Amino acid sequence: MRPSGRQPDQLREITITRNYTKHAEGSVLVEFGDTKVLCTASVEERIPPFLRGMGEGWITAEYGMLPRSTGSRMQRESSRGKQGGRTMEIQRLIGRSLRAAIDLKALGERTITIDCDVIQADGGTRTASITGAFVALQDAITYLIKKRKIKKSPLHGQVASVSVGIHNGTAVLDLDYAEDSTAETDMNVVMNDAGAYIELQGTAEGHAFRSDELQSMLDLAAIGIEQLMIKQREALAD
Amino acid sequence: MRPSGRQPDQLREITITRNYTKHAEGSVLVEFGDTKVLCTASVEERIPPFLRGMGEGWITAEYGMLPRSTGSRMQRESSRGKQGGRTMEIQRLIGRSLRAAIDLKALGERTITIDCDVIQADGGTRTASITGAFVALQDAITYLIKKRKIKKSPLHGQVASVSVGIHNGTAVLDLDYAEDSTAETDMNVVMNDAGAYIELQGTAEGHAFRSDELQSMLDLAAIGIEQLMIKQREALAD
Amino acid sequence: MRPSGRQPDQLREITITRNYTKHAEGSVLVEFGDTKVLCTASVEERIPPFLRGMGEGWITAEYGMLPRSTGSRMQRESSRGKQGGRTMEIQRLIGRSLRAAIDLKALGERTITIDCDVIQADGGTRTASITGAFVALQDAITYLIKKRKIKKSPLHGQVASVSVGIHNGTAVLDLDYAEDSTAETDMNVVMNDAGAYIELQGTAEGHAFRSDELQSMLDLAAIGIEQLMIKQREALAD
Amino acid sequence: MRPSGRQPDQLREITITRNYTKHAEGSVLVEFGDTKVLCTASVEERIPPFLRGMGEGWITAEYGMLPRSTGSRMQRESSRGKQGGRTMEIQRLIGRSLRAAIDLKALGERTITIDCDVIQADGGTRTASITGAFVALQDAITYLIKKRKIKKSPLHGQVASVSVGIHNGTAVLDLDYAEDSTAETDMNVVMNDAGAYIELQGTAEGHAFRSDELQSMLDLAAIGIEQLMIKQREALAD
Amino acid sequence: MRPSGRQPDQLREITITRNYTKHAEGSVLVEFGDTKVLCTASVEERIPPFLRGMGEGWITAEYGMLPRSTGSRMQRESSRGKQGGRTMEIQRLIGRSLRAAIDLKALGERTITIDCDVIQADGGTRTASITGAFVALQDAITYLIKKRKIKKSPLHGQVASVSVGIHNGTAVLDLDYAEDSTAETDMNVVMNDAGAYIELQGTAEGHAFRSDELQSMLDLAAIGIEQLMIKQREALAD
Amino acid sequence: MRPSGRQPDQLREITITRNYTKHAEGSVLVEFGDTKVLCTASVEERIPPFLRGMGEGWITAEYGMLPRSTGSRMQRESSRGKQGGRTMEIQRLIGRSLRAAIDLKALGERTITIDCDVIQADGGTRTASITGAFVALQDAITYLIKKRKIKKSPLHGQVASVSVGIHNGTAVLDLDYAEDSTAETDMNVVMNDAGAYIELQGTAEGHAFRSDELQSMLDLAAIGIEQLMIKQREALAD
Repeated sequence: MRPSGRQPDQLREITITRNYTKHAEGSVLVEFGDTKVLCTASVEERIPPFLRGMGEGWITAEYGMLPRSTGSRMQRESSRGKQGGRTMEIQRLIGRSLRAAIDLKALGERTITIDCDVIQADGGTRTASITGAFVALQDAITYLIKKRKIKKSPLHGQVASVSVGIHNGTAVLDLDYAEDSTAETDMNVVMNDAGAYIELQGTAEGHAFRSDELQSMLDLAAIGIEQLMIKQREALAD
Repeated sequence: MRPSGRQPDQLREITITRNYTKHAEGSVLVEFGDTKVLCTASVEERIPPFLRGMGEGWITAEYGMLPRSTGSRMQRESSRGKQGGRTMEIQRLIGRSLRAAIDLKALGERTITIDCDVIQADGGTRTASITGAFVALQDAITYLIKKRKIKKSPLHGQVASVSVGIHNGTAVLDLDYAEDSTAETDMNVVMNDAGAYIELQGTAEGHAFRSDELQSMLDLAAIGIEQLMIKQREALAD
Repeated sequence: MRPSGRQPDQLREITITRNYTKHAEGSVLVEFGDTKVLCTASVEERIPPFLRGMGEGWITAEYGMLPRSTGSRMQRESSRGKQGGRTMEIQRLIGRSLRAAIDLKALGERTITIDCDVIQADGGTRTASITGAFVALQDAITYLIKKRKIKKSPLHGQVASVSVGIHNGTAVLDLDYAEDSTAETDMNVVMNDAGAYIELQGTAEGHAFRSDELQSMLDLAAIGIEQLMIKQREALAD
Repeated sequence: MRPSGRQPDQLREITITRNYTKHAEGSVLVEFGDTKVLCTASVEERIPPFLRGMGEGWITAEYGMLPRSTGSRMQRESSRGKQGGRTMEIQRLIGRSLRAAIDLKALGERTITIDCDVIQADGGTRTASITGAFVALQDAITYLIKKRKIKKSPLHGQVASVSVGIHNGTAVLDLDYAEDSTAETDMNVVMNDAGAYIELQGTAEGHAFRSDELQSMLDLAAIGIEQLMIKQREALAD
Repeated sequence: MRPSGRQPDQLREITITRNYTKHAEGSVLVEFGDTKVLCTASVEERIPPFLRGMGEGWITAEYGMLPRSTGSRMQRESSRGKQGGRTMEIQRLIGRSLRAAIDLKALGERTITIDCDVIQADGGTRTASITGAFVALQDAITYLIKKRKIKKSPLHGQVASVSVGIHNGTAVLDLDYAEDSTAETDMNVVMNDAGAYIELQGTAEGHAFRSDELQSMLDLAAIGIEQLMIKQREALAD
Repeated sequence: MRPSGRQPDQLREITITRNYTKHAEGSVLVEFGDTKVLCTASVEERIPPFLRGMGEGWITAEYGMLPRSTGSRMQRESSRGKQGGRTMEIQRLIGRSLRAAIDLKALGERTITIDCDVIQADGGTRTASITGAFVALQDAITYLIKKRKIKKSPLHGQVASVSVGIHNGTAVLDLDYAEDSTAETDMNVVMNDAGAYIELQGTAEGHAFRSDELQSMLDLAAIGIEQLMIKQREALAD
């Protein structure tokens, strides 16, 4: 029995709200149950130094948590003077996942920065971030096409992400904080709409996981991601 | 004529939403027109080192802007490795303003941290922050009373804040970004419910302001703050 | 009765010494009683990045306190690895105050940096800094004219600053540390020689201040600033 | 054909040298071909603050690359003033992997820090680090038993790690730099001696990987880790 | 011929002014010609962590240059966010030199921090700092005796410092900036009143120096330090 | 009697191993007894900003200690966020020493960075670093000649370094950690092959040293450096 009463293969309630704020070229509030992340996409007509002269664009991501998005207040990273290891790991993961869905040459010499800021956390902030970030990125691409900066979309796939884990000996989908903090194993899966893997990050918190457990988790992830992609397409169709 | 079409003494639409997020002891989304700030109050049962052994509590504030809360993306302060001067100025102002309304001895040896995070900026983020922060602080105090940590409220007044300025030669109330960026003079006023001043910060951006201009601005501020305090009381009455 | 025995409208002894050190284009030791600040103006033939291509110059200020300028030793900001919020606030205030007196286009594409370093502190370091900084800036302008870098002075006004406050229920002028640390209200006023306000920063430390108290303080500030401007002109006439 | 001429399921030459330096409680030079990492284990009789009062010990890891361990010189992280995201990711991975093999309660209130410093890099530094770190950790445990600080080993398993990937359409084991930099997919696998997974980190660099490709890679990883564990046991038997 | 017209064995004009500022337990302005350094000694009744439980006190030094103490403005180290290597070298040298003259056990569990801040630089700031710092330290010791914190002075010697160098092929004493910047060799010598060496730091800027050149420089240093010690004693006798 | 049983004028066993790692243009493991330092020379075809337009090259050095190169683990400087004063002192010393042996104009507009990383420390790491760094630098120069980047060597001398000290009242050569930590006086000497001094850094740890003690130490240094230069030439002849 899951703490939330959900079935093992049941996602939390998923909501994707576009145009959540007015300044960004893409602005999406994504909610996986009580986890709420604001994903904004900002287009800038410049590229990072390491890409100069290569005729390519860049997609990068930054991640942050509001200090009281969590149960007890976390110190603000700007006042600590540096981003922690977990923050860096997550923003690198988001950036890589999105770059896997886009042709950077076709994007042209510009940068799209995706900011994922957690307003409220209840587990799965990185998977919600990736799922929402894809929609914000899509909106930024639409903006570029409308502004006639590019002729057609450089996106060649859809990307979404979900967590799976072993909780009380059972494989479960889309862990909330209550499950996440007691799960034996936790895996974040990023997939594209062809059902292939972009990222797979599994960690045995309690005990190492066997091949059959891995397979059960991967099966659940495929189910969850299919539903998330429907949600993304519905949001984009509005 | 104001860019927004408002009368000189007219506030933007003001909305104060309590319980905006679920973890904090006080969580308020305050909106001054398109300026939206999330103010959370976090209670911690510890005090900063400089208060040890003095039998007092502490109220402090931190301020941040989401990178794309503004028209063009700002670099994240956590990735720059430090908070800028403007951020520090504003969070010090919020903290002082709230401490002016509370008896720190009666609060007891605990800290309430108010985080003001700007979701969307359109001028007046610091005055909106103070106005929303007071409501979040009130909720945190109510929480402490309900939890029997304190017997009665250590708050001895109500605090709100508004900006005034000289725009196109006319004194105006509650400047939005379009006005703020072209105003000759800009003043942030923090007052209590006795009509007295807690903070006054006036800056001549274009030309120095005369005594009569100062008086016109102060008159407008008093009008605006009275209405903001009604909004605060209505929100708290819900 | 004031701790120093001064009348409510009486400044401390004011001394302005030019050419205090030999390298800077302007070098002024300003003394407000026991408060001693060294203000140097440095001319550099370059501008900050945000002004490129705009045909303007820039005036900026930095502020620091020697570690033992105060009663107990303060940690050196360079060894802490960052400037504190108070330092940033003050140096931003000094910079804005001086920029209000100069035509940046007429200055041409160069930067004048004013360094205000507190040798000994006894209250009012920021107002002494602004008052001394103006003289150092004037000397740097004279240097530029003498070197034929500019033809005539881009300064269009004189700037000075003084603090006022409510101490023991009475409005007083130019607070020293003994008053400042126990004042109910403290206000820093920056004015030009036309009697108009450039900056006004009032803070209620103990209780909020009423309109009539504000008016008494502003009256005292005008008296004090008039005398400070005489001192500035006398120093510059030497 | 692999650039090195190896078979798809062939590890590079593996060398594990214990007691490489004299001060540390465990000191191991691990070589995966031209990749050389010095892993030292340091025992300290204190625990991090977050474990106080819990009666547990801690295993943590730090990772660094000598500036010229790589083809072109990298800036020293100490002179940049911070550790990069990749460094943080790797040291967090090493720490988690080792903690999965030990009973922290049985370790007692002490910390073992594993430093993994890359002397020469040729791909797979993180998997070599984990594999060598386990041996250094084992030596530190033996030291503690010999010094009668603990009675029996708190280790409950053996840990090793290897990379696998898809290179030129073929699944290959233990990628060197030439393969790693052109691989379509790269996965780091950490397993225990029961054949279960501790960590799985797969990244699609070029194109997303299918389930059958994942399975091929996992099969190779199991083969490689079995051999690495023999090397570890041989080294420890000396 | 020296740029200043001085004889090879001639010091610049030396002035040592005690009680230069009012807050510090020792406050000395030391002038070696146009080099002016403010040395303050601050007594604090605490010791650094590494001395806990050892029954000893500590002497430490910090060094800084005002941004425009030099010919062209230097960036403020507090705004750069770190102290440079030269600053660290110098403050470590000053601290070691003073500790060589004191019995730390007899000082008792307290710290004396010597701050050496360069008001105006013209070569030899580190040797002037050490020479002035000794006088400030002496004053702080006298303060401790007067306050009955210690019974007798823990100082067991006098310390002074001077630079020597090879300039235009000739050994010269107490180099000013004009000489220092063109000297082939530069050596800072710290000695005690028994004529023995505390520190010797010689650097060949242009060409390596021979034994006979070293001897000539050491002879000059001894002459200079003898005179500096007379100046120190005269200042302390006032 | 020395702790190691060596004669006062006896070096530890000296080993210089070239081509220790494969990527760097010069890579030398230098061993002074149990002190082991890896010195790599990296050639980069760019110069630091302060040399632009001067037609010169640059030699610089960086120094680091592996965290467990020492008896107890030191905190990693990259995780502390800054290099300590000792590190900065040493790397500045290495850089200056090497620059004294080379004609920077003849090197051409390129930078050679020498990284000295201490694998194992037992006293004398800076003198070993300089001695090994010279060999790595020589190899990098040979590489540049072979690649036809320069026609002939810009090196005009050989550089080596050794420590000397007063231990138990006797002058001794090449102190190991056991001696270094209890020596009354410690001096690092850098010389060239003409027998002249490049750097001299003497510090009285316990008591000040007299002229005759200085002379004894300098005599030993000359003996030691002569032998070190033979070792360097032998290594380079291989």
